[in-house]
Amino acid sequence: MTKISPLAPHVLPCMPVLAGVRMAAVAAGIKYQGRTDLLFLTFDRPVDVAGVFTRSLCPSAPVDHCRAALATGKARGVVVNSGNANAFTGAAGRQAADETAAAAARALGCREDEIYLASTGVIGEPLNAARFTPLLAALAHEGREDAWPEAARAIMTTDTFPKLATRTVPLGQHEVTINGIAKGAGMIAPDMATMLSFVVTDAPVDAPLLQEILREGADASFNSITVDSDTSTSDTLLLFATGGAEENGVARLKSRDGPHYAAFAAAVKDVLLDLALQVARDGEGARKLIEVEVIGAVTDVAAKKIAFSIANSPLVKTAVAGEDANWGRVVMAVGKAGEKADRDRLSIWFGEHRLAYHGARDPDYSEEAAAATMKKDEITIRVDIGLGEGRAKVWTCDLTKEYVAINGDYRS
Amino acid sequence: MTKISPLAPHVLPCMPVLAGVRMAAVAAGIKYQGRTDLLFLTFDRPVDVAGVFTRSLCPSAPVDHCRAALATGKARGVVVNSGNANAFTGAAGRQAADETAAAAARALGCREDEIYLASTGVIGEPLNAARFTPLLAALAHEGREDAWPEAARAIMTTDTFPKLATRTVPLGQHEVTINGIAKGAGMIAPDMATMLSFVVTDAPVDAPLLQEILREGADASFNSITVDSDTSTSDTLLLFATGGAEENGVARLKSRDGPHYAAFAAAVKDVLLDLALQVARDGEGARKLIEVEVIGAVTDVAAKKIAFSIANSPLVKTAVAGEDANWGRVVMAVGKAGEKADRDRLSIWFGEHRLAYHGARDPDYSEEAAAATMKKDEITIRVDIGLGEGRAKVWTCDLTKEYVAINGDYRS
Repeated sequence: MTKISPLAPHVLPCMPVLAGVRMAAVAAGIKYQGRTDLLFLTFDRPVDVAGVFTRSLCPSAPVDHCRAALATGKARGVVVNSGNANAFTGAAGRQAADETAAAAARALGCREDEIYLASTGVIGEPLNAARFTPLLAALAHEGREDAWPEAARAIMTTDTFPKLATRTVPLGQHEVTINGIAKGAGMIAPDMATMLSFVVTDAPVDAPLLQEILREGADASFNSITVDSDTSTSDTLLLFATGGAEENGVARLKSRDGPHYAAFAAAVKDVLLDLALQVARDGEGARKLIEVEVIGAVTDVAAKKIAFSIANSPLVKTAVAGEDANWGRVVMAVGKAGEKADRDRLSIWFGEHRLAYHGARDPDYSEEAAAATMKKDEITIRVDIGLGEGRAKVWTCDLTKEYVAINGDYRS
Repeated sequence: MTKISPLAPHVLPCMPVLAGVRMAAVAAGIKYQGRTDLLFLTFDRPVDVAGVFTRSLCPSAPVDHCRAALATGKARGVVVNSGNANAFTGAAGRQAADETAAAAARALGCREDEIYLASTGVIGEPLNAARFTPLLAALAHEGREDAWPEAARAIMTTDTFPKLATRTVPLGQHEVTINGIAKGAGMIAPDMATMLSFVVTDAPVDAPLLQEILREGADASFNSITVDSDTSTSDTLLLFATGGAEENGVARLKSRDGPHYAAFAAAVKDVLLDLALQVARDGEGARKLIEVEVIGAVTDVAAKKIAFSIANSPLVKTAVAGEDANWGRVVMAVGKAGEKADRDRLSIWFGEHRLAYHGARDPDYSEEAAAATMKKDEITIRVDIGLGEGRAKVWTCDLTKEYVAINGDYRS
């Protein structure tokens, strides 16, 4: 289980410093031994914040806390622990979250609703906050502006590599930077592999606009990946804007009509997609990254539903694991998606090879060419529904025996 | 792959003869070698018929044929082949279906719309009907009234055992019999393991009422099982009523208001559930049968959606395979179902043991008792949502490494 995913990036990106953004991690022994499991991310001054969370109707106590805190739109710190999700832990879970927020607020001299919380790990086990709340005051002092890799490591669970991404984008005369970290062996993920991601920029952006940018970026990134179709109770994606670049002359972003909105939103989306694809590459047991592109659907929404029907199909995913260009299973997945599709207009490509055309096997079908495509680490499945202009792209990984082994053996 | 499922019944049921219902099977060499793969089921006289089919929007050519034929409500014969699904085969596929129906109609001296067709096997491969249509005339002569086991075997694909069920039920002074066969290693199934089922009764039942009885029975049986959430292009369930029992004095069933409607409908449902559970027990790679019961949901529909969210969750299914009473994953699956649920009212049982109560771990939780439950062949997961009166029961099997092996290696 500690073997690094064959799809991992070869080098970690070099993360620029964002002034006033500090991180410290410690081994608090919450569940794991011999590794860090507690992160305190702090901001020297209050920053604007936006967040999107799990759509689960049974969210964790930290998710409930974040949703409430977000009403203020301001943040001073984030406490993240791995090993325990503090989900389905009832009143005791709410109390553990409250205690953590209170201790963090004391350490930073701020309000509790300026503190954000995230927990990831086993569901249903009581979280003993007293184990780590006494550590927060020291961590607040120890925070370093260059500790991004340590931060990414502290929040890992079944992840086999730390996930970091950064982009620098010119807004007029001046540049802003966007740094992000994520964890997860699935956005849509096991109870010990919740997706968490924290992204920080020095761009000056008002919180309501930040929220719009984050929501749209999430739709095209974290909301477009799947490992196993299982939605965590704890998924949390937070975007913080320190505004530090204002001192360098970058004008504040306040609306979609501003001159730099499009460039900044595109860069945020790019960072989010980079992190999301790292999560898909680290999907439990994954040996292949699968990109599913659907074009020609009636609407974009229909295209995304069909794409997810393919990406979540155990039969498509096991076929890819077996390096089998089994396009019949793609037909099956299109058919079950519940969106408009006409068998006689459907065309299917694996990589560059068109295997099916207008309702039947492609006349130029070559088993050898298809087999060669399936040997690659990254497989593209493209489907043309042939009915309209709707399109979507989603990503997943293959379904291997290792996935079953990891998830059949985990808790014990 | 030929090892029989550990969950298979120990003996085949003894199937009573239904007068005028004949079956013959032959090894036509469509794909498999050394086994029968073509079944011709015939009725001496026209019988009433009802059918339900896949909800896939890309159905197979035989499904299209059956849907059209069903308008007449009468049947004389059924041709079933295994090894090739005749799905996504375009105009050539429609022609193969037409040729098969024409040859069968000639053999029986009936109309083509009194012939029903079903094909199961690989999707997208052209079906060469000429390979077996010349055999149908001889099969029509060879049919025997006691060939139910041979019929069940001829339609198998990845099935590890033939699936038969029978019930005899008194309707007033006289009895009627219901015989059924099925195949499938999943209702919601791989492209080579389509669910097919054919049920015959000697009860005299008008076709419209027969259709109502079948639809309701299917909802509580075949539409309540899942192996892997993948819906086939070819699922077909047909119910035939010969009316033979009328000669013994059984009055014709014409409406729900008749005296024997309830008893007959219940017996049909019982046969269908028996067959459906055999399919779940033969789920690819299955080592455990899982019953998921949801109570206390807002409506029955909501309960079924939550139950399927649990039954389709790869994480719940791998946990059962690993004999891990991981109720946190059940919480996750309830949360992602998209139906009303309140974490603080949820209770969860594995077998007789309540593991979670009102939003947290049960105070009497015993890891030993839970572990002992998980060792069994049949696992019951019960969830009380605590909000209303809605209830549903669905069945599935565990997700094992063998499932991945079977489906990663199949086509090659």
